[in-house]
Amino acid sequence: MEREIACRPIGTVKRTEGGISVLEVFPEFCEGLNRLTTFSHIFVLYWFHERDTENGRRVLRVRPKKHPGAPLVGVFASRSPDRPNPIGLSVVRLLGRDGCRLEVEGLDALEGTPVLDIKPYIPRADAISEARAPEYTLEGPPT
Amino acid sequence: MEREIACRPIGTVKRTEGGISVLEVFPEFCEGLNRLTTFSHIFVLYWFHERDTENGRRVLRVRPKKHPGAPLVGVFASRSPDRPNPIGLSVVRLLGRDGCRLEVEGLDALEGTPVLDIKPYIPRADAISEARAPEYTLEGPPT
Repeated sequence: MEREIACRPIGTVKRTEGGISVLEVFPEFCEGLNRLTTFSHIFVLYWFHERDTENGRRVLRVRPKKHPGAPLVGVFASRSPDRPNPIGLSVVRLLGRDGCRLEVEGLDALEGTPVLDIKPYIPRADAISEARAPEYTLEGPPT
Repeated sequence: MEREIACRPIGTVKRTEGGISVLEVFPEFCEGLNRLTTFSHIFVLYWFHERDTENGRRVLRVRPKKHPGAPLVGVFASRSPDRPNPIGLSVVRLLGRDGCRLEVEGLDALEGTPVLDIKPYIPRADAISEARAPEYTLEGPPT
């Protein structure tokens, strides 16, 4: 039932500075970036590799650090990097593409972070402006 | 460089009918759902287990099936289930929780699909209403 699933990095966070990051997709996957720049925003799925420890993956309750005043919540009600599968998810602005490299704005991931997937942000499906969230999510940085 | 990363299912899609799905989180992770219902929408990350084949994971160009008129695009510019890491991502409405079970609306995943992660949808960060996408994404179902 709980077999392990083999995820393989498709690239890596090469550089990150002043809110701008460069993602480098490995050459064998580079063709998969075709027409990506027809989207202004993308989802980046990555692996919090520094949190990939047995202890980090056992965390079930967290106090969201970035939101002052947040209560203790279940890990699935948070964007904590400590979680059973330390997968990070960010919506970022796609600034440009140069071959296998993407320049993006708003990715809060360390250099060397393995990238698992890239998906287009489709506002019709993904932009739910009427979604409700607790008030504490309005304090501090977005996630 | 391309070491495999061990993802472990945290639950499964139990039932899906008429656009409504029941997710069952395994008992050992159930505590992680605490306070999830303070959010109206959540991200569900899952594994397209029926596409987890060497051939499916080699696909780099696809024609998005759900959008009539879509051109051939790179797999990362699509939400295709055939992709190097067949991770599915959906924004769904959280209808309710009963213990380890969540009822959600809008999850387009088969029964038996392994769930990898659940995250709160935080409109401040995730609802980008001004995002641009190609016109063909307006045709057919959302993703």
